[in-house]
Amino acid sequence: MRRRGFEHERDLVRRLWSEGFAVMRAPASGSKVKRTMYPDIVAIMNGRVFVFEVKTSYREKTIYIPRNQVEKIIEFARRANGKAFIAVKIIGSGTWRCIPIGELEETRGGNYRWRSELVRKGLKIRDLVEMVKSCKKIDEYLD
Amino acid sequence: MRRRGFEHERDLVRRLWSEGFAVMRAPASGSKVKRTMYPDIVAIMNGRVFVFEVKTSYREKTIYIPRNQVEKIIEFARRANGKAFIAVKIIGSGTWRCIPIGELEETRGGNYRWRSELVRKGLKIRDLVEMVKSCKKIDEYLD
Repeated sequence: MRRRGFEHERDLVRRLWSEGFAVMRAPASGSKVKRTMYPDIVAIMNGRVFVFEVKTSYREKTIYIPRNQVEKIIEFARRANGKAFIAVKIIGSGTWRCIPIGELEETRGGNYRWRSELVRKGLKIRDLVEMVKSCKKIDEYLD
Repeated sequence: MRRRGFEHERDLVRRLWSEGFAVMRAPASGSKVKRTMYPDIVAIMNGRVFVFEVKTSYREKTIYIPRNQVEKIIEFARRANGKAFIAVKIIGSGTWRCIPIGELEETRGGNYRWRSELVRKGLKIRDLVEMVKSCKKIDEYLD
């Protein structure tokens, strides 16, 4: 299962790289540093930083994210001045959907949830590219 | 020897993290993706991106860097709109020195060299922090 997880992470790395991002995957380990500091993937373009925790789903179902994973990528994104996302790969279709951390729902147990009916409305990779490019246009007015 | 190399990378990660950077180390592998895409370490603060290839030296001697390693981190930094460095740990003193890629000397064989007498003049970690903070002050005028 861990091996399969990495394959999906690599798929997201490849897709973001081919869109022009600088992308890095975290070391594959159950080490403390991975659990407490590193997101699964960081993607950067034109100084804009996207931080990802990666999930997979065999269909569009509700996705649960432990509180510590959410806190970890929030802290990483805060330091970088970046934006934190959960990225889910829908295995059947091979498509990716992303949601900004701030749009997750908190559960009563203090963890987080991304409801199945909202997964399909998540951001596509091309939406992330668009976020970078539209931001670049704004910067161009300042240069 | 590989294990020892990772220990030094982890030391740089810890130091940059304690200075406030978001930091990630690349997966430990001799895989194609590590050789052709990933720098050893990426550090980000306030949207400023520093990309590192890590070296160690038992004293301040001339450091040689293969062309492909230089090209790899230049490409990563170009995509991120970041700055690429060679970071060297001087083992005896435990100190780090960094040099921007653009200040390396090209050898006749097409590789790169960081001369021993220039290693001690390299940037310290606190100089990198200062680069971020002084930049932040400029941005504050624009906000």
